[in-house]
Amino acid sequence: MRRVAIGGFGLTKFNKQDVSIESLMLSSIKALFDNSPNLTQKDVSVVLTSTNDNNKYLANIVSEIAGISPKISHSVESLCSSGANSVISAFSYVASGLAEVAVVVGAEKFDNPGLVLEWDKSRGQYKHPVYWSSMFTRSHMRKYGTTMEDLATVSAKNHKNAVANPFAYFDREYSVDEIMHSKNITQDVRVLDCSFPCNGSAAVLLASEDIIKKFTDCPVWITGVGQKTISAGFTKNEDLTTMKSIKHAANDAYTMSKKEPADIDVAEVHDAFSICEIMEVEDLGFAQKGRGNQFVKNLYETQDRKINPRGGLIGSGHPLGATGIAQIVEIAQQIQSKAGKRQINGARVGLVQNMSAAATSSTVLIFES
Amino acid sequence: MRRVAIGGFGLTKFNKQDVSIESLMLSSIKALFDNSPNLTQKDVSVVLTSTNDNNKYLANIVSEIAGISPKISHSVESLCSSGANSVISAFSYVASGLAEVAVVVGAEKFDNPGLVLEWDKSRGQYKHPVYWSSMFTRSHMRKYGTTMEDLATVSAKNHKNAVANPFAYFDREYSVDEIMHSKNITQDVRVLDCSFPCNGSAAVLLASEDIIKKFTDCPVWITGVGQKTISAGFTKNEDLTTMKSIKHAANDAYTMSKKEPADIDVAEVHDAFSICEIMEVEDLGFAQKGRGNQFVKNLYETQDRKINPRGGLIGSGHPLGATGIAQIVEIAQQIQSKAGKRQINGARVGLVQNMSAAATSSTVLIFES
Repeated sequence: MRRVAIGGFGLTKFNKQDVSIESLMLSSIKALFDNSPNLTQKDVSVVLTSTNDNNKYLANIVSEIAGISPKISHSVESLCSSGANSVISAFSYVASGLAEVAVVVGAEKFDNPGLVLEWDKSRGQYKHPVYWSSMFTRSHMRKYGTTMEDLATVSAKNHKNAVANPFAYFDREYSVDEIMHSKNITQDVRVLDCSFPCNGSAAVLLASEDIIKKFTDCPVWITGVGQKTISAGFTKNEDLTTMKSIKHAANDAYTMSKKEPADIDVAEVHDAFSICEIMEVEDLGFAQKGRGNQFVKNLYETQDRKINPRGGLIGSGHPLGATGIAQIVEIAQQIQSKAGKRQINGARVGLVQNMSAAATSSTVLIFES
Repeated sequence: MRRVAIGGFGLTKFNKQDVSIESLMLSSIKALFDNSPNLTQKDVSVVLTSTNDNNKYLANIVSEIAGISPKISHSVESLCSSGANSVISAFSYVASGLAEVAVVVGAEKFDNPGLVLEWDKSRGQYKHPVYWSSMFTRSHMRKYGTTMEDLATVSAKNHKNAVANPFAYFDREYSVDEIMHSKNITQDVRVLDCSFPCNGSAAVLLASEDIIKKFTDCPVWITGVGQKTISAGFTKNEDLTTMKSIKHAANDAYTMSKKEPADIDVAEVHDAFSICEIMEVEDLGFAQKGRGNQFVKNLYETQDRKINPRGGLIGSGHPLGATGIAQIVEIAQQIQSKAGKRQINGARVGLVQNMSAAATSSTVLIFES
C-alpha cells in the first residue's frame, strides 16, 4: 500500500446564510487553492464531494466551476460521517496507485435532508437524533454516575475552544451554569448539549508520497484508518453505555498505525451531543470506561485543548457532510503547527473520529507528522 | 497494486412495480448470495450502494437487512454512471489492501430524481437528456451521413438482444420499420431510440487474488480501469460528433490492461439513445470515426451480439444507479460462459462503458478471464 498524506486544506466560516451547496463547496476549494500556491487544477485527478444534499452530479458541477477536469468524480453519502468516509475513499485511490492527487470537499446546508432519521422504523416516533442521545445519557448516568454538570462541562469546554476558531459558528463562551439552565429538549438533554446544524464546507488535498512535497513541506501522513458499520437501526445497540462501532474502528486504526491511545497528542471526536464526547474518550481508549466524565472535566479545568481543539461539533456547528473533513483539517493544522491560538504544543500524532446515527457506524483516522 | 476480480453477481428483473429502493437493493444482494454458495455475510468488509435515490444511509440500511456488518459502507452518486464509479471505488479498496471482499449494489426506481438535468443552466429550457441526444444525432447526420434508419438499426438490434435476457424490461423484438414509425420526441429522436427509465437492481462481488477462489472457479479479473470528467454542463462539448470523455477513459483502460480495441470480444456500451451506441463504438476504437453506423448495421445483419448482448439500456431498461453494475454483470457472465442464449463463443476479454449527462463524464472497465 502506497503512503498517502494530507497536503493542503480549505475551510469556510460556518454560518446560516442563504447560499447554494455549489457555492459552499467552491468556497472551500478556493481556500484550498489559496493555501496551496503550487497546486494547479491539472494536478487533481480525483474530486469527491461529501454531502447529504439531494442535488445530483455535484462532484462534476464543482469540478467544472473550479476549473478541474479530474478522472474520478462522484458524491459520497453516509449521513454525518460522509466526510471521513469520502477521505478514506480518496485515500484508497491514492494508496492503490489509481491516482496521485485527490481533492475531497464536504459541504452541507443548515436545512439538509440528513437530519431526521425517517427510515429507522425501530425508533417509532422518536426519529430525531436527540432521542438516542437522551437514551445514551440516561444509561451512562445510571451505570457510571455521570451528572448533568459533567455534560455541561463538555459543552462549556467545546464552546470555549471554539472561541479560538475563526471558522466556528459560535463565537462566545458559555458557562457551566448557563448550559445547566439552558432549555431542556428531553429530560436528559438541554439545547446547549446539542451540536447545531449550520452551513459549512471543508476541503482537503490528499497526495501520494511521490508528489506530496510539491504541495507542502509538512505532509500529514494518514497512517491508520478504521471503519465499522454495526447497523443502521438504533435497536442493534445492545449496550447503551458503549459505542461498539468506535471500538472496532479505533482498534483497526491503532493496529494499522502501530499506535496506542497514549500516543495520541490531539483528537477531534464526534460530539454530536455532550454525552457522545464522554463515551468517545472512553471507547477510543483515552479514559477508562465510566471515567470519561472525569477525563473531560480535567481537560476543562486545566484548559487542555487535547480533545476537540477547534470546538468540536458543539462549538463549531455541524454541517453534516463537512464535519468529518473539518475535523481532519483541524488535526492537519495541529500537526503542521498552524493552529494558532488553538495549537497543542508539540502535537505530532492526531486522531479523528467521525460517526453516524447513534454510532451505528464510525470511522477513525490517525495522522502523523 | 493488488489484482482484483469479480467473483459473483445478482440481478433483479427490470420492471415498473411499486417497490422501495431498499427492497430493490436487497433483492439483488439476495440473488448474489444465492449464486455464491461459499459466500457468507462475514466475508464482506465493504458495502457500497450506487443510486440517485434521495434516501440517506442506504448502504447501512441494506447492510443491516442483508445481515452484513461491514467495515466500509456508503452511497456513491454520479448520475447515470454511479454504478461504474462505485465498482471502481470498491476496486480501489481491494487493490490498495484496505479490504478483501466488497459488495457493490446499484438500484433505482423508475421515477428517480436523476432524470432531469435541472442544474445545468447552460441547457436553458432543454433540460431533458433527449435534447442533447437530438443535438448529437443531428451533428453526426450532417458530418457523416448517418440516417434515421441507421439509428433504428441500433434500437432493433438491442431490443432483439434483450429478448434473450430474462432480466430485461422489454421482451419483444421491434422491427426497423416499427422503430422508424414510432413517435418523434424531437425532430431527430423517436421514442424507440430512447432508453427507458425503470426499476432495477444489480449487485457484484469483488475480491482480492488471495480469496477469490473461495467464491468462484472462474474469476473475472478487472485488468483496466479508466475514468474522465470533462465537465457537468453540456456546453463544454466542443465537437458534437465525439464523446471526448470516452476517448480519455478508454485510453487509460486500454493502457492499464495492455489491450487494444481489437482484443475486445464483447462490450456493454451506454446506449442511452441510439446515437450514443454509434458514437461509442467509434470513440472506443471498434469502428473508424464516421463508420459507427455501418459497424452497428453489420452487427445487426449478421446477428452478432458483440455489442450490448444483454440488450443495452434501450432493450434492458435504464435504472440509473443499477445500469453500470448490470453492464458489468453481463460481461462477467460472458467471460464465465454463463450467458446462456446470449453467449459470445470464446469471449475472454470484455469491456464496459458507462457515462453520465451527454458523456460529460465516462468510465471504462476491461475484464479478462
